[in-house]
Amino acid sequence: MSRKPSKVKVIPLGGMQEIGKNMTVIEYKDEIIVIDSGLSFPEDEMLGIDIVIPDISYLIKNREKIKGIFLTHGHEDHIGALPYVLKKLDVPVYGAKLTIGLVEVKLKEHRLNNVSLNAIDPGDKIKTGNFEVEFIRVNHSIPDACALAITTGAGVIFHTGDFKIDYTPIDGKMMDFHRIAELGKKGVLLMMGESTNVERAGHTLSESLVGHTLDEIFSEADSRIIVATFASNLHRVQQIINAAHKNGRKVALSGRSMLNVVNVGTNLGYLDIPKDCFIELRDVNRYPDNEVVLITTGSQGEPLAALTRMASQEHRQIEIKQGDLVVFSAHPIPGNEKLVSRVINQLFERGAEVIYESLSEIHVSGHACQEELKLMHSLVKPKFFVPVHGEYRHLKQHMDLAIRLGMNPENTLTLTNGSVLELDKDSAKLAGKVSSGNILVDGLGVGDVGNIVLRDRKHLSEDGLMVVVVTISKSTGALVSGPDIISRGFVYVRESEDLMDKAKDVVKKSLESCESRNVREWSHLKNNIKDDLRNYLYEQTKRNPMILPIIMEA
Amino acid sequence: MSRKPSKVKVIPLGGMQEIGKNMTVIEYKDEIIVIDSGLSFPEDEMLGIDIVIPDISYLIKNREKIKGIFLTHGHEDHIGALPYVLKKLDVPVYGAKLTIGLVEVKLKEHRLNNVSLNAIDPGDKIKTGNFEVEFIRVNHSIPDACALAITTGAGVIFHTGDFKIDYTPIDGKMMDFHRIAELGKKGVLLMMGESTNVERAGHTLSESLVGHTLDEIFSEADSRIIVATFASNLHRVQQIINAAHKNGRKVALSGRSMLNVVNVGTNLGYLDIPKDCFIELRDVNRYPDNEVVLITTGSQGEPLAALTRMASQEHRQIEIKQGDLVVFSAHPIPGNEKLVSRVINQLFERGAEVIYESLSEIHVSGHACQEELKLMHSLVKPKFFVPVHGEYRHLKQHMDLAIRLGMNPENTLTLTNGSVLELDKDSAKLAGKVSSGNILVDGLGVGDVGNIVLRDRKHLSEDGLMVVVVTISKSTGALVSGPDIISRGFVYVRESEDLMDKAKDVVKKSLESCESRNVREWSHLKNNIKDDLRNYLYEQTKRNPMILPIIMEA
Repeated sequence: MSRKPSKVKVIPLGGMQEIGKNMTVIEYKDEIIVIDSGLSFPEDEMLGIDIVIPDISYLIKNREKIKGIFLTHGHEDHIGALPYVLKKLDVPVYGAKLTIGLVEVKLKEHRLNNVSLNAIDPGDKIKTGNFEVEFIRVNHSIPDACALAITTGAGVIFHTGDFKIDYTPIDGKMMDFHRIAELGKKGVLLMMGESTNVERAGHTLSESLVGHTLDEIFSEADSRIIVATFASNLHRVQQIINAAHKNGRKVALSGRSMLNVVNVGTNLGYLDIPKDCFIELRDVNRYPDNEVVLITTGSQGEPLAALTRMASQEHRQIEIKQGDLVVFSAHPIPGNEKLVSRVINQLFERGAEVIYESLSEIHVSGHACQEELKLMHSLVKPKFFVPVHGEYRHLKQHMDLAIRLGMNPENTLTLTNGSVLELDKDSAKLAGKVSSGNILVDGLGVGDVGNIVLRDRKHLSEDGLMVVVVTISKSTGALVSGPDIISRGFVYVRESEDLMDKAKDVVKKSLESCESRNVREWSHLKNNIKDDLRNYLYEQTKRNPMILPIIMEA
Repeated sequence: MSRKPSKVKVIPLGGMQEIGKNMTVIEYKDEIIVIDSGLSFPEDEMLGIDIVIPDISYLIKNREKIKGIFLTHGHEDHIGALPYVLKKLDVPVYGAKLTIGLVEVKLKEHRLNNVSLNAIDPGDKIKTGNFEVEFIRVNHSIPDACALAITTGAGVIFHTGDFKIDYTPIDGKMMDFHRIAELGKKGVLLMMGESTNVERAGHTLSESLVGHTLDEIFSEADSRIIVATFASNLHRVQQIINAAHKNGRKVALSGRSMLNVVNVGTNLGYLDIPKDCFIELRDVNRYPDNEVVLITTGSQGEPLAALTRMASQEHRQIEIKQGDLVVFSAHPIPGNEKLVSRVINQLFERGAEVIYESLSEIHVSGHACQEELKLMHSLVKPKFFVPVHGEYRHLKQHMDLAIRLGMNPENTLTLTNGSVLELDKDSAKLAGKVSSGNILVDGLGVGDVGNIVLRDRKHLSEDGLMVVVVTISKSTGALVSGPDIISRGFVYVRESEDLMDKAKDVVKKSLESCESRNVREWSHLKNNIKDDLRNYLYEQTKRNPMILPIIMEA
């Protein structure tokens, strides 16, 4: 009797529009490993929501099987949900040194202790249960980004993580072509490849290009310089520091996450800070303008970030003044364009010079464009291919790219979050779904805001509300006092007294009509009031405020 | 005694972030002409608002002086506020034939009759009072776009309107270089120049390029083709029709504005429709897939537009099916990127092929890039220059461009909406402000939603609300019934009974504390309830719902 060889299962489990962006599950022989535990930022229609994390009920149900969480890199969309996940699951976490350093800060903020955090070096292999997980260096917009090669009895799964190819990286540490080539040669069963920039032709430029541009800008400026970028882009931060130092300027940091990340980066040796280069933000005004550079958060126009507050004159320590040179060393994330533009306008209005991407080469992407993706496919030569980290449009383009490179169309397929791909050396096929989805975090509430609450928030946001209070007689059902009307977010009440008075008449008539028909049940009364008032208000204003009738008995 | 010669005043009066985009006022010798009367679409934070129109209280105050409204072209941001303006002002309107045709549709929808509408031909000069207004043909993404040259005793004001330079326009009607050159030679006092694309290097491509791309795509397709574009871009619509006809396909139109505009365009002779080319949308399914093209609205992913409804399977007549080829022949307007992306994803998921701008040249801009702007400046050679139609960042770049072309920096300046520029042949200087601003239109309400209502909508949208009803004794002030609590948009109530019960306790304690301190005034009671409940809820949830206490007496 021959026993069938086990299959390996792959389940993208987290991400909103983007498949597998925040979390992926690999399952083999009743054991599970998890890749990444990230968060997403809410869609526009998720009103009032702070962050979105993956639904991990599948992992909770299978908690005994989980051998560990393996992190590709330290960006929020890959580690941001860890505190929430680790509150539910007691499993070890593996990641490169900087990644783990950033996780530590995060867990401390959530007062989570006793987590098994394991810092590895790229190149390390972790053997756990029936898995061997190898971390392989790639380039990205944060140091220590890794692809993962996961060896199982069914074959090797290669997950690119987020990556780009940089032939002249700032830290000299290039993607590990040789190891990837070696793996490809030995045979990879499945590649999961990121798809962020699949619509962009050509090759992403090297991070070091930005250094040259910054140096050029700094050498020509004789005013104060303020550079906004992502804190986690430590290579960028290093280059700003280098350009500042070379041009005889001190550096001050602004924004909580900038201070946090630079602190971690310095302690772990990822930043090389020249002696006496850093000064305190509060001391900036004690130096001549042409001897300082500020590195700040706010490159996305985030309303509460340091640069945004400087631009709107709400920053405690720094005020934008005539001649300041502000550099946006970042690209607006889709959806943030208007926020960024608003800050740029304000900076110009205060007399600053502003340099941003459409004017100069002061940013490069962290994600592979088409030619880089082609190289990755050609090196890994997987038997099966699943595009991940993208909206469906990107996955589709990435799948087409793989097919153009010669892959058998039957061997490439797109998944959705929660769908299970079952593989062995001959086949890859869908095998059902597990529960998955988005958990909304609002304040302290994790998952207590759902569709009903969001629908109400949307309704309230568009037309406001009207509360109608009436007291009716317990014995006769007749109106004893009221109706009183309170409205918010509907019309400017002081200028709408007439409308409000008439609305009261409508409610009165509605009650009288109920009384005459001997309708006494409260739910009926309320529905009558709602219907009559809704019709009246819509007719008068073409608006539909939420109507809340409250009936008291006396 | 020598009388000082009159000065001419220029006042950008409408537009949100963009200066002078929707409306501009020119004033000379106690007479006024108005350029354009457009609308803006609401900013994200203008919750529930439909459209935004300029505050015209300055015009209403000076109604006797107004000689007419002159329209540069028929886009919504230049004619969309006309119905609102014409309800307040009885003045004649002038514009090119198509512009006036589109205005007629709009006025009919608003049941506005008896407006003096005057269709001119580009090249015409209208003499009114002390003004002579000359319409000069330019190219743009709608036919019949015009620049305006306004001759006054103080000099000529040249307003570019929205424009691009197209050497191979679809209708063969190129921008009137010769007349503009002639005006420049004679001397222009002030140029007001649009700034939309000032950040883009080079030259906008010709509309005819899109025709070639469409023809190529159509000739290779053997499935159904659906093309989304702006209805008002009649040249684009014409090219889609041409490509369809050439490739043996019938054309069906979808979307109300598409039907409206194509109807106007056809009646006025702006579209050349081959015989038997059009079919009804309901008949599309009676033709083989490779014999039809649909032209549809929805290129911006607008939630209610025809293509969006097709993609989400909510369209009554058309269902997207495997193999359909959908072409987005438009660029997402800033802020619409995510809406467009969502529709693209849905189309791919239904099995359609989708072609959009990052993949192919199926759109060109209607606005001048840097090299075109330089040509315009060089032809017009104005004494003074004011950049308009842009956010401050664009105005700043446009001013810098003018200076690089040799303009005296003192002769170029940026205005804000409402600021008055006073000019004579020697000087241009700011001379105060007139009342200006944005009037929000919500349903039938024009201007009745202001900051207070918007602030409440924002509050409600983020954390919802909680209504607290208590009845207290008229004689003792003691709690007689309640507190009752109703919440919406705050938490999912069924899963938060405990929180709600404790909230009631908080309110009870708050009232007891008032009673013991003999606090009886309702406003104090309400404030106490609000404060105590707010603190409690924030502590428990880190959320701040709007709290509405209602006190009844028994």
